[in-house]
Amino acid sequence: MNQIKVGCRLVYQVHTPTTFLFNISAARNEHQQIVEESFYVEPYYRIEEGAVSPLGNRMVRLSVPPGDLTVSYTATVNLRVEEAQATDVSETPFEQLPADVLPYLNPSRYCESDKLLQFASEKFGSLVPDYSRVTAICNWVYDELSYTSGSTGPTTTACDVLELKKGVCRDFAHVGISLCRALGIPARYVAGYAVNLEPPDFHGFFEAYLDGRWFLFDATRLAPVGGFVRIGTGRDAADVAFSTIRGSADSPEMQVWANEERSNDRLLDPNNVETAVSSAP
Amino acid sequence: MNQIKVGCRLVYQVHTPTTFLFNISAARNEHQQIVEESFYVEPYYRIEEGAVSPLGNRMVRLSVPPGDLTVSYTATVNLRVEEAQATDVSETPFEQLPADVLPYLNPSRYCESDKLLQFASEKFGSLVPDYSRVTAICNWVYDELSYTSGSTGPTTTACDVLELKKGVCRDFAHVGISLCRALGIPARYVAGYAVNLEPPDFHGFFEAYLDGRWFLFDATRLAPVGGFVRIGTGRDAADVAFSTIRGSADSPEMQVWANEERSNDRLLDPNNVETAVSSAP
Amino acid sequence: MNQIKVGCRLVYQVHTPTTFLFNISAARNEHQQIVEESFYVEPYYRIEEGAVSPLGNRMVRLSVPPGDLTVSYTATVNLRVEEAQATDVSETPFEQLPADVLPYLNPSRYCESDKLLQFASEKFGSLVPDYSRVTAICNWVYDELSYTSGSTGPTTTACDVLELKKGVCRDFAHVGISLCRALGIPARYVAGYAVNLEPPDFHGFFEAYLDGRWFLFDATRLAPVGGFVRIGTGRDAADVAFSTIRGSADSPEMQVWANEERSNDRLLDPNNVETAVSSAP
Amino acid sequence: MNQIKVGCRLVYQVHTPTTFLFNISAARNEHQQIVEESFYVEPYYRIEEGAVSPLGNRMVRLSVPPGDLTVSYTATVNLRVEEAQATDVSETPFEQLPADVLPYLNPSRYCESDKLLQFASEKFGSLVPDYSRVTAICNWVYDELSYTSGSTGPTTTACDVLELKKGVCRDFAHVGISLCRALGIPARYVAGYAVNLEPPDFHGFFEAYLDGRWFLFDATRLAPVGGFVRIGTGRDAADVAFSTIRGSADSPEMQVWANEERSNDRLLDPNNVETAVSSAP
Repeated sequence: MNQIKVGCRLVYQVHTPTTFLFNISAARNEHQQIVEESFYVEPYYRIEEGAVSPLGNRMVRLSVPPGDLTVSYTATVNLRVEEAQATDVSETPFEQLPADVLPYLNPSRYCESDKLLQFASEKFGSLVPDYSRVTAICNWVYDELSYTSGSTGPTTTACDVLELKKGVCRDFAHVGISLCRALGIPARYVAGYAVNLEPPDFHGFFEAYLDGRWFLFDATRLAPVGGFVRIGTGRDAADVAFSTIRGSADSPEMQVWANEERSNDRLLDPNNVETAVSSAP
Repeated sequence: MNQIKVGCRLVYQVHTPTTFLFNISAARNEHQQIVEESFYVEPYYRIEEGAVSPLGNRMVRLSVPPGDLTVSYTATVNLRVEEAQATDVSETPFEQLPADVLPYLNPSRYCESDKLLQFASEKFGSLVPDYSRVTAICNWVYDELSYTSGSTGPTTTACDVLELKKGVCRDFAHVGISLCRALGIPARYVAGYAVNLEPPDFHGFFEAYLDGRWFLFDATRLAPVGGFVRIGTGRDAADVAFSTIRGSADSPEMQVWANEERSNDRLLDPNNVETAVSSAP
Repeated sequence: MNQIKVGCRLVYQVHTPTTFLFNISAARNEHQQIVEESFYVEPYYRIEEGAVSPLGNRMVRLSVPPGDLTVSYTATVNLRVEEAQATDVSETPFEQLPADVLPYLNPSRYCESDKLLQFASEKFGSLVPDYSRVTAICNWVYDELSYTSGSTGPTTTACDVLELKKGVCRDFAHVGISLCRALGIPARYVAGYAVNLEPPDFHGFFEAYLDGRWFLFDATRLAPVGGFVRIGTGRDAADVAFSTIRGSADSPEMQVWANEERSNDRLLDPNNVETAVSSAP
Repeated sequence: MNQIKVGCRLVYQVHTPTTFLFNISAARNEHQQIVEESFYVEPYYRIEEGAVSPLGNRMVRLSVPPGDLTVSYTATVNLRVEEAQATDVSETPFEQLPADVLPYLNPSRYCESDKLLQFASEKFGSLVPDYSRVTAICNWVYDELSYTSGSTGPTTTACDVLELKKGVCRDFAHVGISLCRALGIPARYVAGYAVNLEPPDFHGFFEAYLDGRWFLFDATRLAPVGGFVRIGTGRDAADVAFSTIRGSADSPEMQVWANEERSNDRLLDPNNVETAVSSAP
């Protein structure tokens, strides 16, 4: 069990009546127990909480008049990851995939797996169909791309990134997801907090469905998957923006943090490759 | 908007390995926003959180060895009740009831509505089929029964109570529910925290489905419905026990509290009868 | 795989404007594939289909003016039951029961398990906590009760039946369910069609949750569980009445049938006790 | 009420062990009542039915050895569309959109709304924000694109189509969806059967969320929306392919049909523009 304190503080200058949609609360599920949590809005406005089923992403919607606005979220999370020996984890055959997993084989806005069928097959088609194949994808993505802040934008797709050969965390995840789907491995995007991420920020990584479960992967190697606190899950980054703004607002200031309180050191080693880590319902 | 701080502290002496199931967390839904929340177990044991769909009751399960155990829950809840003019609220005809509401017409363990069809029809069958009919039921229950601590037990049913002519909050609710169902009005049990309840304790009340919504009722008149913080909802008290214990444990000490921080005074008047109050999804 | 043709024909004389709620359609789930199905109303009126989540019982609601009414349902069902060696099936410990199974430990209208704790413990408490204990309950119910048409009514409960020592299929099921729950075994009521039932009628039986699955039991021994086609599932018979009538109607005529087209003979033997049969999602 | 008979017959020559996923069954919901239905596989193999929540698309999965295979589906559907006066239907403000509708504002694989924000705003941003704005989008799509069989392929996106200026039904729908989302109107793809479509085939169209409901639109004007029988709903065509094949199979023959049995003529006029039509849960 890893206990992690996460949070963020978002400061806005709002120019016109504006509606915000925040996706910053830690997910509540059997793997993430929230011991303490607070969500403050300063000055006080009524917020509305909701959840997009079936993934349980928690959202807060807030409509405010012009003026200053500060949103603060903090949580103490007990994280219980399920571990597996990587060598024991095989791919799930198509005929055994549960119905609710099937949509994660479909291409999505930033993950054009349908255009990468031949490419993925040539690069990874002959590898053993198990956990090590997704590791091979992550290693290839890590070697192929350089992590360069500011190199890509909000409409950049996996295919764009494969040409640019650089990107940020969401781009690394999109390429990993696209290659998995092209090989018939269901994959999806996860937004979260991450311990030991430098500089601290919201993080994006991905999950692949293997052997009847979702396993976490991060091709950036920037932070250990055992220290990831899930905010939301989606087909790609389009589904889990940490904020959506309808109106007009500047964001002069933002802090994000994730600190371990107690931990299982092994899972918090970014070089861990033998232990497969699963944290999804 | 009413802001209410609720919580409880439960102390146990555990004699054998024991599993507890707690139903003490405030429900999270569009009407109850949790601003701050904590759930502490002392000494530390891993807890498991779950939700019984589709009502979203939040449960915590905890298995512990013999020894002392303290469980503490606190929450700051922003309560947004929907109000309606009582005179505008009619009953919903059977042919328009949504499918997920229909089970609340069925009799349940402590609410034998199937045995009260004639009784309910004679007493209330000729009244106008709207909100005032449920008010009439509550008034009749209040007049008919005396609130007497310790007068009933865990297997006491609505029919038992109608003979005894006394009971506690859960009994008042069971009779109200049974009479509603017997008249064709869907009704269900709610367990919660209640501001201004004397002495402080967990409270039980009920909801009736009228005019496409669930409205709160409390035939005990012990506390104002505008100060109720929902824990869980069920067919009757059997579904929402605040603790279930499998093993052996004594409970030498328990505190429960609910205090208003900011409030809408009108809804916090137990004599309010003109404003119908709704707080369910 | 067993292929079974089921159906019913219900004839009514309707005296006033009346709303019917029918629970006669075979459930659709991974265990019951509907190859062909028809639902006819004569004369034609618009019907409304719905499902009570989360159990997926399919309902049809129909409002008609006075006059004659015939409702006919037919389906060809491919039934895929999962079998297990009875001796391999143990009870699931309380701390491992899934959240959505927990409500089936609660007492319900016709299954007062809370009043049978001591009785059940004395009779069955010392038996091995596995499949054979539920078999022992069924055998005891079979020996203790005599199956007598017309001996009980719609408000008869398990405790009533234990005094009367006779009843019909729903009563046998209610007693079995009550004893299971009293011992900490989740149990629930199933309404369905049954091959080889004499005389043909709707049937009631039950399921117990063992070893992570729901297993079918029928203490009446009137028909083989491998030939049961599920209509609906509930806490007890209150949840799955085949028809609910609001208004005024006579029912001069009713036929129900269930015939095997192809079958796995072993499961269609009512004396089967070695093979445990599971057919629930 | 429109009664429509739909069906299809799909013939395959299967070369290797192959798994099929079919999305050809009419959706079951409050707007589509299935009076009769059959799903036959020749020769007989066990099929598996499932539903992708939360949209309720019904899928059939089937694994077969090499050889000939024929799949036949037929259904008699009573279609109950809800009508509204087009001039009464306004757009729903962002702050009032339900949580489960929000994902339909996100860009998807074939609907790159995030790249069309400025384009959509220039073309349609100044129009009255109500039903007529979506009609204006459909009219523009109809005028701008030529319907040309074979002009596009499975990876063609809305932006591709806007350059090509031609496409088939799925392309018309993708452009309509993209422009709606770019304007802040939730929109989604619907696959279905369509009365009076020439030549008969599966059809693709779209829905926009207005005034608290989903309304049907078809920019191709090839068939009347009142004769659409829904198979499935998704973010775009990627989610609702009528068949997915894993293995190797040829499809030498396919028939699709949709014929009205009884109808409300007004809704079956493709030139209807005054009556807005809604048929989604």
